Amino acid sequence: MSSEMGNILKISIFGQSHGAAVGVTVQGLPSGERVDMEELMAFMARRAPGQSSITTARREKDEPKFLSGLENGVTCGFPLCAVIENTDTRSGDYAGYTQTPRPGHADYTARLRYGDSVDMRGGGHFSARLTAPLCIIGGIAKQILARRGIHIGAHLKAAGGVQDDSFPLSPTKELFDTVAARSPSVINLTAGERMRERIEQARAELDSVGGVVECAVIGLPAGIGGPMFDGVENRLAQALFGIPAVKGVEFGAGFACADMRGSENNDAFAVEEGKIVTVTNNSGGILGGITNGMPVVFRIALKPTPSIGRKQQTVNVDTMQSAEIEIKGRHDPCVAVRTVPVAEAVAAIVILDMLLEEKTDGSF
Amino acid sequence: MSSEMGNILKISIFGQSHGAAVGVTVQGLPSGERVDMEELMAFMARRAPGQSSITTARREKDEPKFLSGLENGVTCGFPLCAVIENTDTRSGDYAGYTQTPRPGHADYTARLRYGDSVDMRGGGHFSARLTAPLCIIGGIAKQILARRGIHIGAHLKAAGGVQDDSFPLSPTKELFDTVAARSPSVINLTAGERMRERIEQARAELDSVGGVVECAVIGLPAGIGGPMFDGVENRLAQALFGIPAVKGVEFGAGFACADMRGSENNDAFAVEEGKIVTVTNNSGGILGGITNGMPVVFRIALKPTPSIGRKQQTVNVDTMQSAEIEIKGRHDPCVAVRTVPVAEAVAAIVILDMLLEEKTDGSF
Amino acid sequence: MSSEMGNILKISIFGQSHGAAVGVTVQGLPSGERVDMEELMAFMARRAPGQSSITTARREKDEPKFLSGLENGVTCGFPLCAVIENTDTRSGDYAGYTQTPRPGHADYTARLRYGDSVDMRGGGHFSARLTAPLCIIGGIAKQILARRGIHIGAHLKAAGGVQDDSFPLSPTKELFDTVAARSPSVINLTAGERMRERIEQARAELDSVGGVVECAVIGLPAGIGGPMFDGVENRLAQALFGIPAVKGVEFGAGFACADMRGSENNDAFAVEEGKIVTVTNNSGGILGGITNGMPVVFRIALKPTPSIGRKQQTVNVDTMQSAEIEIKGRHDPCVAVRTVPVAEAVAAIVILDMLLEEKTDGSF
Amino acid sequence: MSSEMGNILKISIFGQSHGAAVGVTVQGLPSGERVDMEELMAFMARRAPGQSSITTARREKDEPKFLSGLENGVTCGFPLCAVIENTDTRSGDYAGYTQTPRPGHADYTARLRYGDSVDMRGGGHFSARLTAPLCIIGGIAKQILARRGIHIGAHLKAAGGVQDDSFPLSPTKELFDTVAARSPSVINLTAGERMRERIEQARAELDSVGGVVECAVIGLPAGIGGPMFDGVENRLAQALFGIPAVKGVEFGAGFACADMRGSENNDAFAVEEGKIVTVTNNSGGILGGITNGMPVVFRIALKPTPSIGRKQQTVNVDTMQSAEIEIKGRHDPCVAVRTVPVAEAVAAIVILDMLLEEKTDGSF
Repeated sequence: MSSEMGNILKISIFGQSHGAAVGVTVQGLPSGERVDMEELMAFMARRAPGQSSITTARREKDEPKFLSGLENGVTCGFPLCAVIENTDTRSGDYAGYTQTPRPGHADYTARLRYGDSVDMRGGGHFSARLTAPLCIIGGIAKQILARRGIHIGAHLKAAGGVQDDSFPLSPTKELFDTVAARSPSVINLTAGERMRERIEQARAELDSVGGVVECAVIGLPAGIGGPMFDGVENRLAQALFGIPAVKGVEFGAGFACADMRGSENNDAFAVEEGKIVTVTNNSGGILGGITNGMPVVFRIALKPTPSIGRKQQTVNVDTMQSAEIEIKGRHDPCVAVRTVPVAEAVAAIVILDMLLEEKTDGSF
Repeated sequence: MSSEMGNILKISIFGQSHGAAVGVTVQGLPSGERVDMEELMAFMARRAPGQSSITTARREKDEPKFLSGLENGVTCGFPLCAVIENTDTRSGDYAGYTQTPRPGHADYTARLRYGDSVDMRGGGHFSARLTAPLCIIGGIAKQILARRGIHIGAHLKAAGGVQDDSFPLSPTKELFDTVAARSPSVINLTAGERMRERIEQARAELDSVGGVVECAVIGLPAGIGGPMFDGVENRLAQALFGIPAVKGVEFGAGFACADMRGSENNDAFAVEEGKIVTVTNNSGGILGGITNGMPVVFRIALKPTPSIGRKQQTVNVDTMQSAEIEIKGRHDPCVAVRTVPVAEAVAAIVILDMLLEEKTDGSF
Repeated sequence: MSSEMGNILKISIFGQSHGAAVGVTVQGLPSGERVDMEELMAFMARRAPGQSSITTARREKDEPKFLSGLENGVTCGFPLCAVIENTDTRSGDYAGYTQTPRPGHADYTARLRYGDSVDMRGGGHFSARLTAPLCIIGGIAKQILARRGIHIGAHLKAAGGVQDDSFPLSPTKELFDTVAARSPSVINLTAGERMRERIEQARAELDSVGGVVECAVIGLPAGIGGPMFDGVENRLAQALFGIPAVKGVEFGAGFACADMRGSENNDAFAVEEGKIVTVTNNSGGILGGITNGMPVVFRIALKPTPSIGRKQQTVNVDTMQSAEIEIKGRHDPCVAVRTVPVAEAVAAIVILDMLLEEKTDGSF
Repeated sequence: MSSEMGNILKISIFGQSHGAAVGVTVQGLPSGERVDMEELMAFMARRAPGQSSITTARREKDEPKFLSGLENGVTCGFPLCAVIENTDTRSGDYAGYTQTPRPGHADYTARLRYGDSVDMRGGGHFSARLTAPLCIIGGIAKQILARRGIHIGAHLKAAGGVQDDSFPLSPTKELFDTVAARSPSVINLTAGERMRERIEQARAELDSVGGVVECAVIGLPAGIGGPMFDGVENRLAQALFGIPAVKGVEFGAGFACADMRGSENNDAFAVEEGKIVTVTNNSGGILGGITNGMPVVFRIALKPTPSIGRKQQTVNVDTMQSAEIEIKGRHDPCVAVRTVPVAEAVAAIVILDMLLEEKTDGSF
């Protein structure tokens, strides 16, 4: 029941939203990997709050401090620990929700699980703030993978009922970079504008909207993964459900394949430039849990931010009486917007772990 | 990269479709649990092939033989090993697919991963036949859970484009039993008839259809699970992607919540018969990775059976020339039909593991 | 609390002494590895009972049957399951020991742990019989390692108070083979004779003796392992305490180094044939948990077989009255004798796992 | 190959001797446990350097800073991270040892494993300094266990060839406290004096001595653990070899039982005050990997500190020429002295993990 994962690249996330710091301890990073700090900060900035009108107003520097594992900007083979101190916190805003739990939040279940000592100020360890350390190690993993020709990109596939275009059959690093530079990160700018309108409208109505993030991994060698419980889908799914608000994960055609016929869904094999490819990618680049050399493509469904300003029905768990709450504080009206880089981070961590499991020294 | 999972209840699946046997080794089962063999056989019969016109014609007894861990029908505390011998196999049907891999199958990726020694007759270790050992231990887990008031049921939510009704807010064991007795396992019999028609039509056209299985767990205590990577969603998702043909997993409202507003999606808390409940269950019984006492509800998307009789385009991986194949042999035209009990089995294994992680001796 | 171990090469041991079978399920074996069955049977014969006057009279064929993972004598990349059926069992001999537990045995603790359903006939899952499946996978691991120039040998370093010579600084495969062909497996034949006398004398007096097994791994690359909890010593020790009757594990000079000075114990570095070596090997080939290229050397202490014919004091756990027991049945008077190949097997499993963790495909 | 361990209580150690900080991230601590900070600091002071004439002169406050998991001195259920900043470091003393590796040290193997980027200043992640974070979480574990009547104590059983008395059959918390207050921590004060003389003499001769630490756990319930690879001995041994300089681990009579007969070594059962006990404790409180209710007793062998002032032979790994080194810097002449509390810490971590594995919420 822990905030830890990985087989070779083992990450252990810690921190509460309004505690001293959030951070991550990482075992198993290969030695001798340079970390481009500027690139890392740019990546982390994509998930940072306060970046635009459609995200929360909380402003944080999110500057990681490396306590170990990194010397002169290069991994030294030993465990890495990076922390981000919490500075801009206003706990007063959040007092009392373990008594009158917010609908859609972990207030109620956290108290059941951890008892009265639980620190749920600002969402505690359940806060989206915990995606910052995921982005530290995810950003480092992205750099290590990029050095080996493996690139990961994501975009906001849907928000507030508006659909972005899908990734093409073979997305490129350039497309990833273009999309990453946009806010929201979309392929189709018109769709992006309409999303922004819907999100701002929801915020104006003290409400929030859900969304979908689509992510692709390109350059991944074929033959990575395995059957049953430890394949690419299993491990990505396990990790992706660790991102707050994720309620669904699908690969390739995903749920749409339920309505397809085999003759439509099967991806025919062909030879292209001397390489075996598939002419469609309904499998999302994965057959039998193993990569087939096509881009690995997945989508995650994000529920609307549960913290909304409207009056909501709840229960006072101490008196067992009905109660109403109006949530104050600063919240993203669409958590999916800032989840785009987080999806990339989580994918990078899992993919790097799987590759290190093949060759621990990073010689893949 | 292994066919092993679990923290306390550790299962290790083995076997190839056309090898000597398939089976499962299980560590961590609590001692003193009686196994009702008749009930277990009835459960396993639900996934067995050859049961009706819409499943494969392969006939197998699927009778598990217990090599250890079970004495006089009661678990003895030691590791359990159960095997099912393979008897009715016709390997000739399947020869050669690692040279001209079947679209949508693991033929190609398995050869990449395991080399020329891989035994892919009948799908090898990727075969749906491997769900039989999952059902042995899943069936036993279901009995252990039922004894503690926790029941698991599933139904064919969609097949061939036809939708069954959804589970009601509070499904009952009686509903589970009723649905389980049907083939296909549906709530709405009319929907079931239309599914059957679509499936038979696809078969007649040498094609196949996809589907969705919905599963619910009732009676589960609130407060089970945890944040980030080891919560209920993470662990169920990791395991569920181990079922062949699964391409998507969602909880509660799942992907639908991407189009919802927070005010719609949030489940209001209320008091009912002295207990805290939610008046809707868009969360699927899980908040912050922890059960809230409502039914845990998930759906899995199953792609259409990739083995279809139609001519398909592939590549001869030795000559790198285009090739056509027509797959012979016996195949389910809709793998989702027989996946209904498998989803229950996997859910039972994961839920039991999580409860044993709370109290290893089964005193939950 | 399970009979499972390994990171990549995951083994799951099952079976009770007087159940249907004992066996092992193995995940993560590399594909394409030939198993020389004759060599495997010869290896297993070294641990089989009934081989001489100083071992138990129980006779068993110990012939493994492979249910999966091995096709035409070659690993196919999928999980391997091997079983040995139990044929020559006389349960009557052992009835009743959970009521009047045998001193030095797990009878008492097993009942506490597993309750009344525990199957302790013949020692249940605690029996030395469970070392047979360890030797199946250990024997296979030895062959895989030998193909890569890594050899493992062991000898009976002490028994009944008699010491064998120690392995030389650089033991050879030839020495391993010579010693393996002897019974007991000793370097110094005179010591072996005196051990035999002591063991036979103990048996004649309805008693038993303890012993020490020394094991060496040669040809292992330098640079394998790591600091703290997952190094060579940690993993070997964890596994070696899984061999019944082991009460101590030491590496290199081991407990003797407690009486040494640093200037004596430190192994000076030198260059020999263009390679860095140490002129002594008090470290047992391991510095900081990492191999240094010298032979890895360890010793395990084995307690005297607890099952002795003499009258012993115990307690009737149901009446809580003092009781006396005289144990009947067939027992090794010195369990260390047959543990020699088991130590090799366990070392081979751990070392192969660690090398596969470096390169999962076996390309080390 | 990582500095991580545990099943429920998962600890991940990080830091280099001369990096920014050392620390530990901990998953799975039960919620609501008060940490007595004064007691923790007193415990940590026992391993701190600079405490007496027989330890290193390096002075450090070793004051842990809690970044998460602890609010108002009480565990809040979320992951705990504690760090100790490195202040008093003199890297100059240690430059260059990866080129001319120190005999008995990890300099050579670390460079092989991690390459040129490895940070081995002051021993890097292999330094005894890393036992400080072990003592943070070990000290907390000790408090949690003590609250449940489980106490852990250790003493310096041997150093420089001088033996302390052994723990009596049933050591008490009072004895533990008495011994802990002494430096060195011995039962027999005369033995302690003679140890001190030997250690000081070695230091004067620019040399060092080895030692043995004996540790006992009292109050532990019977029935904890299991057979084969995950029992009490396996898990303690795996963890104990993580303490720098440990070369042997034994339980109960340990290696001495190799020279015993079964009739001597078997611990007879008896009834005492209505409880089943054994009249001797050669098993070290463990039968079949499971606790029997007697004190768990183990000993660890510690090699002499490898860093000695005398001239030593080594090799320049770049030129492959012989070289001589004289190690400067501050070193303990007997690392065993300060290992006494570390052994307690590691035992506490493992035992708490095993109990939490029984009942995750700490209700044991």
